[in-house]
Amino acid sequence: MSEFLELLPPAQALESFLQHCNFVPQTESVPLQDAVGRIVFEPIVAPFELPSFPRSTVDGFAVRASDTHGASETLPAYLNLIGEIPMGGTADFELTAGNCAIIHTGGMVPAGANAVVMVEYTQEARPGEIEILRAVSVGTNVLQPGEDVSSGDEVIPAGTLLRPAEVGGLAALGRTHVTVAQRPKVGIISSGDEVIEPGNELSPGQVFDVNSYSLHSLITQAGGQPISYGILADDADTFKRTAEQAKNECDLVLFTAGSSVSVRDLTATTIDNLGQPGVIVHGVSVRPGKPTILAVADGIPVIGLPGNPVSALVIARIFVTATLQKMMGLTTSRPRAAIPAKLTLNLPSQAGREDWIGVKLISTTDGYMAEPVFGKSNLIFTLANADGLMKIPAAANGIPAGELVQVELI
Amino acid sequence: MSEFLELLPPAQALESFLQHCNFVPQTESVPLQDAVGRIVFEPIVAPFELPSFPRSTVDGFAVRASDTHGASETLPAYLNLIGEIPMGGTADFELTAGNCAIIHTGGMVPAGANAVVMVEYTQEARPGEIEILRAVSVGTNVLQPGEDVSSGDEVIPAGTLLRPAEVGGLAALGRTHVTVAQRPKVGIISSGDEVIEPGNELSPGQVFDVNSYSLHSLITQAGGQPISYGILADDADTFKRTAEQAKNECDLVLFTAGSSVSVRDLTATTIDNLGQPGVIVHGVSVRPGKPTILAVADGIPVIGLPGNPVSALVIARIFVTATLQKMMGLTTSRPRAAIPAKLTLNLPSQAGREDWIGVKLISTTDGYMAEPVFGKSNLIFTLANADGLMKIPAAANGIPAGELVQVELI
Repeated sequence: MSEFLELLPPAQALESFLQHCNFVPQTESVPLQDAVGRIVFEPIVAPFELPSFPRSTVDGFAVRASDTHGASETLPAYLNLIGEIPMGGTADFELTAGNCAIIHTGGMVPAGANAVVMVEYTQEARPGEIEILRAVSVGTNVLQPGEDVSSGDEVIPAGTLLRPAEVGGLAALGRTHVTVAQRPKVGIISSGDEVIEPGNELSPGQVFDVNSYSLHSLITQAGGQPISYGILADDADTFKRTAEQAKNECDLVLFTAGSSVSVRDLTATTIDNLGQPGVIVHGVSVRPGKPTILAVADGIPVIGLPGNPVSALVIARIFVTATLQKMMGLTTSRPRAAIPAKLTLNLPSQAGREDWIGVKLISTTDGYMAEPVFGKSNLIFTLANADGLMKIPAAANGIPAGELVQVELI
Repeated sequence: MSEFLELLPPAQALESFLQHCNFVPQTESVPLQDAVGRIVFEPIVAPFELPSFPRSTVDGFAVRASDTHGASETLPAYLNLIGEIPMGGTADFELTAGNCAIIHTGGMVPAGANAVVMVEYTQEARPGEIEILRAVSVGTNVLQPGEDVSSGDEVIPAGTLLRPAEVGGLAALGRTHVTVAQRPKVGIISSGDEVIEPGNELSPGQVFDVNSYSLHSLITQAGGQPISYGILADDADTFKRTAEQAKNECDLVLFTAGSSVSVRDLTATTIDNLGQPGVIVHGVSVRPGKPTILAVADGIPVIGLPGNPVSALVIARIFVTATLQKMMGLTTSRPRAAIPAKLTLNLPSQAGREDWIGVKLISTTDGYMAEPVFGKSNLIFTLANADGLMKIPAAANGIPAGELVQVELI
């Protein structure tokens, strides 16, 4: 237990790391069609109210509500039809007492009118005269100006993730472009004498580079622009030169070391010498992922990820995603969706250490069951077989079978 | 209630619609870097086992387990050091009894050895001789060949959504490319005399086109390629010509009508005349979204969405997303993540109709509270203010305050 108790828990490690990062988000203007999934940089203020005019919510007749008082199927009110309100335009008349006008859903309620009677509750008495079969009160079937948004309202705060609803809202305000944070460039530096690029012939003792590709995918999903720097030879000069280049070209640099002690040491040394203040956190009390390094080199955050594929992805979910979000200025945090499920078996764990376990979700009539997928963290298909990850908090020394756990989809 | 009881519930409407669609997914080969979020079309079969050789999981010494029997701090075993196993290569020796060899994490356990002793449990007795301070059994600290995947295993079934873990798995198998379903082209046809393109000056009575943009975003997120056909004039020939063009150019066509009865009727007529078999479902027992039209025209699915922005998004989430998934051949369905939350107030509802309500999630020490965001479905910022949507099932006539509901993030 002691080795983990000396290490920082993930949340605390992240906080202390991010405190050392002074991010100044770069921004760009994008057309609305490309805005979904981006983080808005400017607060969006409504330049006018929405709706900008009183709108009918139904097809029917614009009326003065007082003209319909007491109207019913047996005792209709009779109103003169004086015209039709054009869609997308303004009536060229004001509605006075005793009159009505045809209006369509979305049409502008004319001056003088204050309610709309649905066409279903009317009939033509004779040409030019309409029977109103139901009374309406002031405002019935009318969207009032400003009912959605008032002029000057901050409708989308800076730092909001743009979802389809926000993009629609921007269109409603007449916007064609929006200023968003640029996608941070994320350098991926791989290493290890045993690691080779997929597509080559595998000699005995060699393995294909997994982490460059899984991290590339995760960075893309998290809103960053991944840039691969290839697999470095086990050599201090190459490490230093590539790290300097990535630091100059990227906003965040990731090392995904091979597994031998020599490249692990080279990674640690290279990160520590890359700039000030250097390593902030070396080792985190989490499994998988203990050997994680969090550093800042002259303002550029640098993360040394564990070499095992599963560990690398779990740690990147925790640290890389949060760093990218902070870089892009995300301020509004929506809850991370999770699926509650009953654990199928007892999961022991070491107190003082946060554990992340891959689970399969099994649908039952009584909700989901979470079945842990066991396998060493070197085995990438362990994670590919999982629907999600569950956490055993540091304070717990295990979770009993039958307990409800929260599964985060991966 | 009766008007809704005559209509199909959403799930049944979707099923009956999809039964009429005969999708033949188009495929393309993409590099692994672009594969995340795509649906794999080919079953992925492992061409070799993983790991492909016995790998050490620690830094230490490769040994024969029997040589360490009984070894302890007080009574170490002594083994001759005969060499070091190169990372990414094969030892040029076979390990015989009484000998050991330096091995690094990820290195290949040499012939003759069957376990690895961690370096922490060893010390150098003198040059060329190692003290083993702890016994190991056969297989200790060794990943066996095939422990992750056997040769010939179907490791990723066709129709699987590729997540970072699957992309990593493909890299582990040496793949550089993967065959995925093409992104279906989705035509968006907007209409309404009152609807104008954002970026123009708004005259009284006009509104900006919201749905083209919110749908564009939703289609992008769901894996489709949106193509906008602009805002049609209120004219039968224009509707017919544009619909034919979209049907020829796209895999799925969406109509998002303006709100006046004339364009609603034009939309319905145009869809019905576009091809065989025509309209499958007209009207669904869901709120918002009752006027939804589901049609198939000569093999191309066509969906008439409601004109109100909130309704259009809610209905697109149900029908457009599912249609795209079927088009892309998605076969493995992972649970949709939701957040359990306690409803803050009584929500009445009409039995026989499925209701979708936007809610804000409020974090409390006792979990989340779900606070409904009320507003007519014309008001797009109602949805922009919501964290997610909750469903009141058709069978219920409401949900009481305090009940646990499942909130789907939007």
